[in-house]
Amino acid sequence: MSTIHIVGAGPGRADLLTVRAARILARADAVLYDRLVSREVLELISPAAELHDVGKAEGRQEEIQGHILDLLEDCGRRHETVVRLKGGDPMVFGRGGEEWRWLVARGWNVEVTPGLSSAISVPELAGIPVTYRGIAGGFAVVTGHRHPAACQEWAAYAHVDTLVVLMGVGRRAEIADCLIAAGRDGDTPVAFVENGSTARQRVVVTTLREAGTCEVNSPAVMVIGEVVNLRGQLIQPAHFNAAVDLTSLLQVGEAHTRQSC
Amino acid sequence: MSTIHIVGAGPGRADLLTVRAARILARADAVLYDRLVSREVLELISPAAELHDVGKAEGRQEEIQGHILDLLEDCGRRHETVVRLKGGDPMVFGRGGEEWRWLVARGWNVEVTPGLSSAISVPELAGIPVTYRGIAGGFAVVTGHRHPAACQEWAAYAHVDTLVVLMGVGRRAEIADCLIAAGRDGDTPVAFVENGSTARQRVVVTTLREAGTCEVNSPAVMVIGEVVNLRGQLIQPAHFNAAVDLTSLLQVGEAHTRQSC
Repeated sequence: MSTIHIVGAGPGRADLLTVRAARILARADAVLYDRLVSREVLELISPAAELHDVGKAEGRQEEIQGHILDLLEDCGRRHETVVRLKGGDPMVFGRGGEEWRWLVARGWNVEVTPGLSSAISVPELAGIPVTYRGIAGGFAVVTGHRHPAACQEWAAYAHVDTLVVLMGVGRRAEIADCLIAAGRDGDTPVAFVENGSTARQRVVVTTLREAGTCEVNSPAVMVIGEVVNLRGQLIQPAHFNAAVDLTSLLQVGEAHTRQSC
Repeated sequence: MSTIHIVGAGPGRADLLTVRAARILARADAVLYDRLVSREVLELISPAAELHDVGKAEGRQEEIQGHILDLLEDCGRRHETVVRLKGGDPMVFGRGGEEWRWLVARGWNVEVTPGLSSAISVPELAGIPVTYRGIAGGFAVVTGHRHPAACQEWAAYAHVDTLVVLMGVGRRAEIADCLIAAGRDGDTPVAFVENGSTARQRVVVTTLREAGTCEVNSPAVMVIGEVVNLRGQLIQPAHFNAAVDLTSLLQVGEAHTRQSC
């Protein structure tokens, strides 16, 4: 009987896949992947596998979602090892839980393989630990695509020590305003990490008050909290370039970072 | 020049290490590891490596921490590849950021490799997605070892959709009382996952009001929120046992779960 694997692709670097995920990709018969899965990770998929990019079109999510579920079943009927590959961790937004539930209800054998969530690993690799003794005893993760994007929904998250917002670049001005309205200090440091974990990483550091005016390219991970200030004491210039023994999996070049916006 | 790697060991299963972490362990000269790192992961360390268990004794954290830092430097002077191996992700509690900062300040070359945080992956593998469209648009992670363990500190986290508490088993009654005092509904479902991701996994499901009276063994991941109710629709009896192609890394047996306390 075929198995449908829901697999996390991690933040981007291919060697940040789990061993389990890398093995499943190497023997996959068919893979349906999202927009946020990196090219480096896609290169690990068995060359014999059927590849389906199901993440390109935006703004028609409900229609696309139905198509994805139909395609998963179609692949499941024709193949033994089908992979639904999602950027980051499949249960952190991205409808991973919904797809899992739907497939189980239809009688499919489903296995889940977690991935590194960008919410934790992208700040970490950019020199921002989401927790830190005496500075942050906890953190929260939310999506910037909240429906409805009403300000009061942000209040429950406004006073956590570290707040990580995924998919929030387009609404960053509104998000910052809502958090300040809920009582968060406008001077709280904020970092945006674009292309986290990859050689194209770029970091923009600002404050909550100024977050809306910063030039940031989507997608980026937004980190709000005092831990952002630790970055200067953690990141060394050659941090990523030292990973020379991993070049068989991927090439890592210069990381471009910027300290303020 | 030697490199000190701060590496996340993930939730327990050896194949849930990242590819990068597995490669670093295979060529390590010395490894300092914590109490929460599993035996299966330790078996992946190069047989030639010096192994230091620095996580056994409890209650003397400050004294032990100084010893760990001294030992890391001692290993760094004698070896090229030194690994500080931490359960889960190194920047989610566990002082990973502190060790990173201290080592950088002393001039050491440090590289960080994220790991799967137990906060996300352990619930996920037990059938509890931390986010789910229409049920949980965000989640927060805190430690049960908050200093001081004053009730008001819990208020900032009481109203997030999904709250994950790590290292909270010993104080579960007090945590539940604080959350209820901050306005969280006593009927909110709660799950405790012991030995998450391993063959010895055990899940106890209860409510916030009853959480203090449940029999739970430490360590366990505590999940609070409506997403706990999804478990019955996601978990299939043979979920983990199907991973037969991964037995070269580890053996996975029967998972023992319990639906209520």
